[in-house]
Amino acid sequence: MIRIGIIGSAGRMGKAIADAVAVAGATLAGGIDAGGDALELARASDVLVDFSVPRALVGNVGAAVAAGVPIVIGTTGLGPDDHQTVDDAARHVAVLQTGNTSLGVTLLAALVRQAAERLGPDWDIEIAEMHHRHKVDAPSGTALLLGQAAAEGRGIDLAANSDRGRDGMTGARAEGHIGFAALRGGSVAGDHFVIFAGEGERVELNHRAESREIFARGAVRAALWLAGKPAGRYRMADVLGL
Amino acid sequence: MIRIGIIGSAGRMGKAIADAVAVAGATLAGGIDAGGDALELARASDVLVDFSVPRALVGNVGAAVAAGVPIVIGTTGLGPDDHQTVDDAARHVAVLQTGNTSLGVTLLAALVRQAAERLGPDWDIEIAEMHHRHKVDAPSGTALLLGQAAAEGRGIDLAANSDRGRDGMTGARAEGHIGFAALRGGSVAGDHFVIFAGEGERVELNHRAESREIFARGAVRAALWLAGKPAGRYRMADVLGL
Amino acid sequence: MIRIGIIGSAGRMGKAIADAVAVAGATLAGGIDAGGDALELARASDVLVDFSVPRALVGNVGAAVAAGVPIVIGTTGLGPDDHQTVDDAARHVAVLQTGNTSLGVTLLAALVRQAAERLGPDWDIEIAEMHHRHKVDAPSGTALLLGQAAAEGRGIDLAANSDRGRDGMTGARAEGHIGFAALRGGSVAGDHFVIFAGEGERVELNHRAESREIFARGAVRAALWLAGKPAGRYRMADVLGL
Amino acid sequence: MIRIGIIGSAGRMGKAIADAVAVAGATLAGGIDAGGDALELARASDVLVDFSVPRALVGNVGAAVAAGVPIVIGTTGLGPDDHQTVDDAARHVAVLQTGNTSLGVTLLAALVRQAAERLGPDWDIEIAEMHHRHKVDAPSGTALLLGQAAAEGRGIDLAANSDRGRDGMTGARAEGHIGFAALRGGSVAGDHFVIFAGEGERVELNHRAESREIFARGAVRAALWLAGKPAGRYRMADVLGL
Repeated sequence: MIRIGIIGSAGRMGKAIADAVAVAGATLAGGIDAGGDALELARASDVLVDFSVPRALVGNVGAAVAAGVPIVIGTTGLGPDDHQTVDDAARHVAVLQTGNTSLGVTLLAALVRQAAERLGPDWDIEIAEMHHRHKVDAPSGTALLLGQAAAEGRGIDLAANSDRGRDGMTGARAEGHIGFAALRGGSVAGDHFVIFAGEGERVELNHRAESREIFARGAVRAALWLAGKPAGRYRMADVLGL
Repeated sequence: MIRIGIIGSAGRMGKAIADAVAVAGATLAGGIDAGGDALELARASDVLVDFSVPRALVGNVGAAVAAGVPIVIGTTGLGPDDHQTVDDAARHVAVLQTGNTSLGVTLLAALVRQAAERLGPDWDIEIAEMHHRHKVDAPSGTALLLGQAAAEGRGIDLAANSDRGRDGMTGARAEGHIGFAALRGGSVAGDHFVIFAGEGERVELNHRAESREIFARGAVRAALWLAGKPAGRYRMADVLGL
Repeated sequence: MIRIGIIGSAGRMGKAIADAVAVAGATLAGGIDAGGDALELARASDVLVDFSVPRALVGNVGAAVAAGVPIVIGTTGLGPDDHQTVDDAARHVAVLQTGNTSLGVTLLAALVRQAAERLGPDWDIEIAEMHHRHKVDAPSGTALLLGQAAAEGRGIDLAANSDRGRDGMTGARAEGHIGFAALRGGSVAGDHFVIFAGEGERVELNHRAESREIFARGAVRAALWLAGKPAGRYRMADVLGL
Repeated sequence: MIRIGIIGSAGRMGKAIADAVAVAGATLAGGIDAGGDALELARASDVLVDFSVPRALVGNVGAAVAAGVPIVIGTTGLGPDDHQTVDDAARHVAVLQTGNTSLGVTLLAALVRQAAERLGPDWDIEIAEMHHRHKVDAPSGTALLLGQAAAEGRGIDLAANSDRGRDGMTGARAEGHIGFAALRGGSVAGDHFVIFAGEGERVELNHRAESREIFARGAVRAALWLAGKPAGRYRMADVLGL
């Protein structure tokens, strides 16, 4: 049975991951937080999952490399230096770094990229999302991730082709633009809607999250997939074979 | 069989209304446009339907009053003076003035008002709409009409409590606000979504228009309902008994 | 602070209600299960909430009557005798009996009834629902409750006008029928969709439950509303003033 | 400018295709119906579009082969002999035979196949569709086409793994089955919903047709794509490069 070690085990995601490990039929090797011994945890694990903070990244991947153990990195807010750290580690062990561990979102992004590539620019792309009332930014990071997938499929630059926050006299829609709309309310965990609107027909590619536990579940799935893999940098899409 | 006379018969709506009259099993009394004789038409009709321009309003309702014939007014862009003209005419004949003749939207607005009244302010209200790529303004007039219904149900002022065009660091949602989001693309005739998002559950009240013919159909239904009614000013909601 | 006593406190709903009592800022007077002293609990409570079993009903409402305390009854599977018991108790204390304590569903049923009443029989009514993969019956009880509301609005008998489980050569849709469709999969807590489909337009009245906690929350809201009310039999719709 | 010849030009689809040819900026080479000279039409065209009847197929493809002109075949109700006829012709000219010429549905089927392949059997697949009240069969042909795509993605036999027309005590959902649900009402041109329901999340892949003109538009797009192609049998998916 694969042993999973959790870095950042006292955080919201860390606790959810511990629950998901049990459900997945894997073994919890242990967990640490700030001040914990990452190397000791790495040696007791078949794979590490890191949902901690950027400043702990060097130490955490260092432990993974020293112990020769793969590592899933879900820590958010990484900068260019952090990505260099990840790249360096990936020459020695398997590293999967991602900003979103949901399998459904990962699949959706791949489908959106394809749809944007196959449908011509006469199909307008709109991305709407709804989140709970406490969310402070718009659009959501996942909406932007889906927009990026659409822009790559179209071969365009997202920032230069985005319509955000439509209000007032906007004029007719510019061909090739990608629209974003944000809804907020209640306790919605996160719904995303990508609409391809053509003449007389629409294709809608949606994702609905019922709870935030899906991110923990996806992280564990990624860890089980990564255990035993050769050195290299992997993406969530690889877990689904996309 | 009720005879319907169309003012503005050469316009897009006028033509659609003529088609709808036939489908509804009524009789087309005739139609006029700029320069036509409204009084002659009124005398040949059991009810008039006016989808022309504001500057023709005085003459049109004058003809209805002179002939003692009810009139449905769907002309858009009316100002305060025009509404005074309508009120004056309503002392003599039945007048139904409306900015939206869809039965579905009329019903939806009534349901939205009630839902807003019954559900407490801990249920956040969001209104999203999608229209074709040629639409130049946002939100749609119907979205604002639905927002107004929600605001009336809540007993608040819409303008002072609207969140429009969310983008960037918006902060958490303000309690009691009504959010608006606009999607544009393809050839969508008009979809509207009113979402009441509470803790753990959502109520969604939606309308989907397949084509713009529904407005002609609703105008004819309103005309058939209005024929024979006593003098007074009526609304589309009255047609549905709301 | 209103004191709520829970009958059936060890069950899934009982536990969820205890959590919801705390969140609502009320006081938990205590809880009992099979063999517990309902009268003692009733005397320590301002209102009782009963989510136990039909055979305990006589004892539970007897305790409520003896202590002069209102009671919310959410126990399912009640028969005609049980309803007689409820009616008898309602002559002495306030009793609210319901098969669904969700505020959103309660509102939706009222809106569906009205829409069915106002829109003519040329608007076809369809009810679809989606629930988790473990659900063993179709359509859901809530779908039938919504169908009943639609049938009452139309003034028709539901059983004689239902289209269930369409498959194969069904022939064209019969006017006036109410269609039901059941989707099953994943962990969906319960989504319901009531569609009024007219010529060229659709009105959709939907409810989405994110989790089953909403039923506990609604039960507590009902209890807080019922405390202090005069004797009589009440419905969830009364809590919303519908 | 590419010249398109229409076989079956007096039918509903034939007329819609003639309209679509003009909109697409192509040239209408002419049209024939029963008794018309297909060879003469073929010689005046760069590509043929056949929406006629199975018994005319041999003559139509014979004309295409004799004139060396590609042909799009949208005629429905083809049997095994007809498919042999198509295969034979495809050795001499380019032939694209399809039961659904919508670009959106074609794309959707490809995305559904992939999603079914990538997401494990713990993601339940449900297919719902809504069509107008006059439709006499359920599920729709397009729903079955999407179900077939899902079954191929999963590597299972569709007929042996379908749940159709759920009603009554169904028991829990069988893993790996594909569910179908049919909604009927109003004038809906055709909406299809493919839902992948996992633990805690859902991916929804939908198509909405606003009108039946999209099939004519897709047929013209296919014809323009097929003109000039080498001999062979093609599919709608090829038009989108899928």
